[in-house]
Amino acid sequence: MFRKLVSVDEAERILAENLKPKPLGKEPVPLSEACNRVLAVDVVSPLNIPPFSRSTVDGYAVRAADTFGAEEDHPIALKLVGRISVGRMPKVRVVKGSAAEIVTGAPVPDGADATVMVEYTARKDNVVLVHQPVSLGENVMKAGSDIRKGEVVLKRGLVLSAFEIGVLAAIGSATVEVYKQPRVAIFSSGAEIVEPGKPLAEGKIFDINAHALSAAVVQCGADPLNMGIVQDEREQIETALKKALTMADVVITSGGVSVGPTDIIPKVLDTLGKPGVIVYGVAIRPGKPTTVAVVDGKPVFSLPGHPASALLIFHLFVRPLLLRIAGRRGHFPLKLKAVTSQRLFPSRGRRTYVTVTLKRTKSGAIVASPVPTGLSGAITTLAKADGFIVIHESQQFVDKEQVVEVELFKPEVYYSLAG
Amino acid sequence: MFRKLVSVDEAERILAENLKPKPLGKEPVPLSEACNRVLAVDVVSPLNIPPFSRSTVDGYAVRAADTFGAEEDHPIALKLVGRISVGRMPKVRVVKGSAAEIVTGAPVPDGADATVMVEYTARKDNVVLVHQPVSLGENVMKAGSDIRKGEVVLKRGLVLSAFEIGVLAAIGSATVEVYKQPRVAIFSSGAEIVEPGKPLAEGKIFDINAHALSAAVVQCGADPLNMGIVQDEREQIETALKKALTMADVVITSGGVSVGPTDIIPKVLDTLGKPGVIVYGVAIRPGKPTTVAVVDGKPVFSLPGHPASALLIFHLFVRPLLLRIAGRRGHFPLKLKAVTSQRLFPSRGRRTYVTVTLKRTKSGAIVASPVPTGLSGAITTLAKADGFIVIHESQQFVDKEQVVEVELFKPEVYYSLAG
Repeated sequence: MFRKLVSVDEAERILAENLKPKPLGKEPVPLSEACNRVLAVDVVSPLNIPPFSRSTVDGYAVRAADTFGAEEDHPIALKLVGRISVGRMPKVRVVKGSAAEIVTGAPVPDGADATVMVEYTARKDNVVLVHQPVSLGENVMKAGSDIRKGEVVLKRGLVLSAFEIGVLAAIGSATVEVYKQPRVAIFSSGAEIVEPGKPLAEGKIFDINAHALSAAVVQCGADPLNMGIVQDEREQIETALKKALTMADVVITSGGVSVGPTDIIPKVLDTLGKPGVIVYGVAIRPGKPTTVAVVDGKPVFSLPGHPASALLIFHLFVRPLLLRIAGRRGHFPLKLKAVTSQRLFPSRGRRTYVTVTLKRTKSGAIVASPVPTGLSGAITTLAKADGFIVIHESQQFVDKEQVVEVELFKPEVYYSLAG
Repeated sequence: MFRKLVSVDEAERILAENLKPKPLGKEPVPLSEACNRVLAVDVVSPLNIPPFSRSTVDGYAVRAADTFGAEEDHPIALKLVGRISVGRMPKVRVVKGSAAEIVTGAPVPDGADATVMVEYTARKDNVVLVHQPVSLGENVMKAGSDIRKGEVVLKRGLVLSAFEIGVLAAIGSATVEVYKQPRVAIFSSGAEIVEPGKPLAEGKIFDINAHALSAAVVQCGADPLNMGIVQDEREQIETALKKALTMADVVITSGGVSVGPTDIIPKVLDTLGKPGVIVYGVAIRPGKPTTVAVVDGKPVFSLPGHPASALLIFHLFVRPLLLRIAGRRGHFPLKLKAVTSQRLFPSRGRRTYVTVTLKRTKSGAIVASPVPTGLSGAITTLAKADGFIVIHESQQFVDKEQVVEVELFKPEVYYSLAG
């Protein structure tokens, strides 16, 4: 099996051809768990909002025609026939020449068609003096005037925030149909890695990728299944991949691809189902060993072992796919303009992604400085990675102090720099 | 008890004087639950990273001095003394004139101080021919060169994303100390409201605010305790407030303030602890009836019953406080520039917040159109609320087609319009 690098554009074309990401179906969740989930249906109101005509002010429910001609100095006298409070249907009826005391939000009684604000009235025992006329419907919110029964109030695909959850509560929904979250199985492979928290034998390092990628999956609104470390042996890899494909919708492995002479994962993937490996190496820096397979419809991404590379490739190829399976409408890259701290060179023939750290200088400019990459500085890179600059294959270099667009890894960076 | 409106600036000053929001302390969480939590400590690495010197390439571990003078046509011959793989400390020692086969990431054996890339070598049985010299340390990542034992790798206050979680895994942490999430008790009061999902009696409407505000609390990284609906009677309100103050760090009520003639909540708050009510009405539109109390150090916000007003006041006064208690460094408003669809007038003497919906036109401009407010259109307002424009007390109006800054309620709006 020989690695045949494809360009980033070609890799994207192959992925688009072989993967048609779409939501996995829907499930009901209570409103208390709905925040940040994606609406899976057009929501139709089963009732009028408001369900009955309500007064929008404190005052007196009246027949508007009775108030015509009222003036500051020549009030019209109406007979008080009752008091209406919120939460109960009024028992009184407003007939010609009468009025009922009413508070904001209370149901407007039969016979009344407007409310006079208390400020424009005076009261003498059972007589209400109206000093200003009201027009038909004034200060009344009619039944169904906000939302009509049968009206679509929220559209499929919306990400639910406090506002949409308020709309759902308003129409009486205790639960809401949201898209199922994609389940993503993740494991790391390699003879040298140890689970964090366990003792570290000589010659070993702690596994980073299963944990970092699990968090990256959470950040896409998906559900990670962290399978931990799998030994880099054919039998264990095969067992792990089969289990992952059974339990999850998407599989991510890291390490084990071109880390040393072993290269088991792609070989195993080709035996598990069709079409098998569809991308076997990308002309990209970092992330060249990236392998993508499709096994009976499920995507399997084998990412590089280098943590910063694995997270970059996740961001470029896995995240857009997960967002679409999660039912989100777009890719949503957060970008900022910045000036480069130094001249940056691409890797020849490969699209190059330069991980940068961003700082706002005293002059107000945002400066993008490359962070150390390579095996050296792997952890420092993670700690300082705010985003990246893309250098296309055809570009000679990006000059020092050039204005560039930086795509961000974390929204926090945007908030702290652009806010 | 008389309502004395204070300006928005004055309200903010009073809040700042009476409330000194700070994190509540820390708690350990496993890495799998750490995403989006806030780091409560400076994290110090307990080990060198890498823990041992590693080769950054596939090739041969050598003594650099042995390779000096090697040329394409005049290779230097070294004796192969072993093969080093990842995950184990090498048993071989590289002495003068010898080399050991090594793979990327494997420990560099004693005696060796550089690695020659396999591309610059040839092999004949047990002899390695080196065609290019390497310098001291070349292709070797020295122990501690990325992170030194005792070095601070992550700073307190960081929001944990995939990258920071990768750093934590790298230094062997299975758990991490994060700030405790503020607990926020929420209830709605009012005689007319019914829990969504329950049957709706005549004259009643569904409660919106307890659900919408719970979601808003989640969006701040805090932990809502939704107490549901409390009857607008002194005894029930007092019981609910006492329970809320016992169980939570912050209390939010809505409705029951200036909805009709009853105004129980502020009266009860003044009896529960010192200083009691500190803001009793704000010269703001919407949201005038907003009341803030402090009861033995815990803030209690009584928000208007109107859902869009309640969420706006939450955004302006409660959210910044919760973010600070959650340990986040700033307020992080997301803003976009837009042009107004029409002339907008403030409410006289009150700072006015015009809720708008945003649309990108064919010409590429983002247009901000006010959404209906008032009791009428309450739900429509929620469904269309993308953000708001502020009109200051001293402003006459905001003109049609004026460029304004819109503060966003939801990051999704930013992503879909600015992305």
